[in-house]
Amino acid sequence: MAHHSEEDDIEFEANFSSKEETEIRTRLINLQEKIKEANIAVILLLCGVNGSGKNAALGTLRDWLNQRYLDLHAYERQDIQKDPIEFRRYWCDTPVNGNTGIFVSSWYSDPLVSHAYGKINDDELYERLDECNTFEKNLVDSNAVICKIWFHKNKNEQQAFLHALDEDPYEKWRVMPDDWKNCCIAENFESTTKKIIRYTDKDYAPWVEIESGDLTERLRKALDTFCSRVEKQIELFLKNKEKKEEDDKEKKKNNKEKKAEFIKKLDMEASISKDEYKEMLPYLRARLNTLLMEVKKRNKKVILAFEGPDASGKGGVISRLASSIFVRDCNIFPIAAPTKEELNHNFLWRFWTRLTDQKLLTVFDRTWYGRVLVERIEHFATQQEWKRAYEEINHFEKQLTKGRNIVVKFLLYITKDEQMKRFKAREETEYKKWKIGSEDWRNREKWDLYDEAFDDMLEKTNTKYAPWFVIADNNKKYGRIQTMKLLCEYLEKELDYDPSEDIPPPDTEKNGEKVKKDKKKK
Amino acid sequence: MAHHSEEDDIEFEANFSSKEETEIRTRLINLQEKIKEANIAVILLLCGVNGSGKNAALGTLRDWLNQRYLDLHAYERQDIQKDPIEFRRYWCDTPVNGNTGIFVSSWYSDPLVSHAYGKINDDELYERLDECNTFEKNLVDSNAVICKIWFHKNKNEQQAFLHALDEDPYEKWRVMPDDWKNCCIAENFESTTKKIIRYTDKDYAPWVEIESGDLTERLRKALDTFCSRVEKQIELFLKNKEKKEEDDKEKKKNNKEKKAEFIKKLDMEASISKDEYKEMLPYLRARLNTLLMEVKKRNKKVILAFEGPDASGKGGVISRLASSIFVRDCNIFPIAAPTKEELNHNFLWRFWTRLTDQKLLTVFDRTWYGRVLVERIEHFATQQEWKRAYEEINHFEKQLTKGRNIVVKFLLYITKDEQMKRFKAREETEYKKWKIGSEDWRNREKWDLYDEAFDDMLEKTNTKYAPWFVIADNNKKYGRIQTMKLLCEYLEKELDYDPSEDIPPPDTEKNGEKVKKDKKKK
Repeated sequence: MAHHSEEDDIEFEANFSSKEETEIRTRLINLQEKIKEANIAVILLLCGVNGSGKNAALGTLRDWLNQRYLDLHAYERQDIQKDPIEFRRYWCDTPVNGNTGIFVSSWYSDPLVSHAYGKINDDELYERLDECNTFEKNLVDSNAVICKIWFHKNKNEQQAFLHALDEDPYEKWRVMPDDWKNCCIAENFESTTKKIIRYTDKDYAPWVEIESGDLTERLRKALDTFCSRVEKQIELFLKNKEKKEEDDKEKKKNNKEKKAEFIKKLDMEASISKDEYKEMLPYLRARLNTLLMEVKKRNKKVILAFEGPDASGKGGVISRLASSIFVRDCNIFPIAAPTKEELNHNFLWRFWTRLTDQKLLTVFDRTWYGRVLVERIEHFATQQEWKRAYEEINHFEKQLTKGRNIVVKFLLYITKDEQMKRFKAREETEYKKWKIGSEDWRNREKWDLYDEAFDDMLEKTNTKYAPWFVIADNNKKYGRIQTMKLLCEYLEKELDYDPSEDIPPPDTEKNGEKVKKDKKKK
Repeated sequence: MAHHSEEDDIEFEANFSSKEETEIRTRLINLQEKIKEANIAVILLLCGVNGSGKNAALGTLRDWLNQRYLDLHAYERQDIQKDPIEFRRYWCDTPVNGNTGIFVSSWYSDPLVSHAYGKINDDELYERLDECNTFEKNLVDSNAVICKIWFHKNKNEQQAFLHALDEDPYEKWRVMPDDWKNCCIAENFESTTKKIIRYTDKDYAPWVEIESGDLTERLRKALDTFCSRVEKQIELFLKNKEKKEEDDKEKKKNNKEKKAEFIKKLDMEASISKDEYKEMLPYLRARLNTLLMEVKKRNKKVILAFEGPDASGKGGVISRLASSIFVRDCNIFPIAAPTKEELNHNFLWRFWTRLTDQKLLTVFDRTWYGRVLVERIEHFATQQEWKRAYEEINHFEKQLTKGRNIVVKFLLYITKDEQMKRFKAREETEYKKWKIGSEDWRNREKWDLYDEAFDDMLEKTNTKYAPWFVIADNNKKYGRIQTMKLLCEYLEKELDYDPSEDIPPPDTEKNGEKVKKDKKKK
């Protein structure tokens, strides 16, 4: 008797024979094992109206899979609409490798409803769907398997189903007001659904449609679809993995060095005097503060990215920037090697998650560009991966800027000689020794490779919406002032707002005489 | 020259000699090493008004410490006031062991301002401060070092300082409207501050007060206070650690077994028929749904905790519960062994963090009670730790219920024989094998110890605000129905709301005849 004590595990109306149930459950549990072993992330989308079989499929999977490796996601439409960066939530919710994430409402929900109700036209729908495609492509490229199932149910059936629920006092809670509302324009939903499926049915993330009919039949098809797709993709993935590794070994040899272009435009001798620095800093700090307050007023946010060789002075610049704003308005993220959990996600995930609960100013001390810098040079990423990353990064930043963010990127550059001086200083100063390790010396040996990588990065990701500024930082004072100045100028341009009236520039005599400014400092 | 290129690292007005700067910075960097090594968390509170030296101290520490092991926190008062659970944010923000968290606004900010403006009276202030004390005690007990510094500045000095800032176009951005407002009632702030300091100056978290005066002097004192306190506490901590380990070995032998009380009250033979189950389940599901919607309407939330021996049927019960609500309204957390990051925090941290972005219903499949169950029995926690945990847990749940949560706890219990039957069934079923491992068999050997631990847990944590319900679950159907029934009853009582009119109970004939209910199921 105990052997079958769990046979009543689900109370939906589908009727699998005990034999079939055993088969399916065994298959599902084995599949979870394989997913864990292959260390890939699985994403299952269950779409469709109430009563279409979507919820039955969800319930079955929730009961039959090992919950420890299962995440369930559903969203309130209002929550999604409130976030200016549409995909932030979805990115953060992507399952870690080894896990399966089931989404019962997803990135398709809002486009579907908005279009069905005529709130967006076809062009706008397709634009939104482009985002869905790109998102899915990114995930598949970082070893996720996506399985998308759409459960259909025609208007008559929907009506009958909702009526049946409504008349049963124990089931009518399942009917939400929107169910009836949506049912009334079921034709619109059907036509939008067709468009969505046609436009987003991709090799890397195909749709499987399940027509209405017997529930057991639909459920059987859904479970089989899920298992088959994931089994097949894991097999392919494991095959490709070996091949990729070999390919990459070949390609590594082909790296050829070229002289970096960006350096030619830099004046590495640029410097400013201590007096000028002491005068400019408070001025720029005040100016930056005013500009950031204006950003806040407009309900926007600022994200700053800093890259540059070791000891190029990123920390010092960031510290000056940060001192122009209250701590509660600013988050600084020093980015080190990814943790194990972070490695088990798409490389952008750890940046997306740091962008939830965003403060007015977010500063990254080293960034997602690690993908095309250290990961490229140290071969932590395959050539395919880092070459693809430029586009992925541009798209990431595009989403941020579309979502009420101003994104500015700084490359702080020093010469190899200057780095040596700074390394030595660090070694000789007790409290700076921690700043220098064997890794820094190793990176130094690859100076030219980094120059080349910087060059490619600047060429491919210096976009209108998220520009790069390259700062010659051999003279730290110059670098700090220059960064703050360029940042102020960019913000002024973006906001079309000039704070000069409130914050007049210091009236320095150009001929090098002492600064006149009576009101400053007692 | 390069050697001194970083000498201008800070632009505040304090003037340390180069020699003193070197000494302090070396001490700070060495201290961070020690914190890392001892693997403790350090919490530094910097309190005081604008210009008191608080910000200078923060700036110095931000520049001189290694940022990778440093977290800065400041809060908008509105954000804190919006959260019904006051300390949730602070708990989530406690630094991981090895790190230092600097708080420039903290759990004292809101009580201070509220009291200074007469929004709360003395009693209310002290009540709030009790929470602060308990919070700090919890952290110190889990190996945190807390250093609290209050920078004083009297009214005249404040006024002079604010005037000086206001007159400088480059500095006036530092003056917030509230600064003047607060300055006007500086006497109130002073008197509230005195009360706060007196009431929360504890051995485990003492205050150091820094009087106004020369900035360099104040900064020197602050930095020295910080270093001295942490150095001393680490030394003590390392000494106590050895002692504790020895003590605990002694104490382990003293465990004596007693017969568990709670079992005596259980009818382990309780069961219901399949028919009754099939009728009751949709009824209770509907009833629970209605009650949960009422919870939502009242802007409250529900947290359920499930404990019980392996194979006691927690998953099955939770699945039934969850099927009475839409996925978007429900989060289920299966709790396994803590991760490395979780281990490096207070044991409650991993539950606090799971309670951010709370959904209507949150279910924990195994819970914080692991501290007084598996951790007690397997000696993962010292006796001191788990004995203290009962109170910590009660306080945790108190905070949740005060913060608009309804907390209900279920212990699903089975007999040892029934467990054996279920273990065997798991072993014999291909798709259930993953549910059973050597750990389960090991736990089984400690059955009596678990009984005793359950008994203690029930005795010490069955509070009015977060009660336990013990469910005899030898018959799974009975256990599921019973759990849902008790949960419904508890919610009805808590909400003082009876949904019977909308959800009439099934009209079962008591004499065992077939159920009459024409309208149900086609």
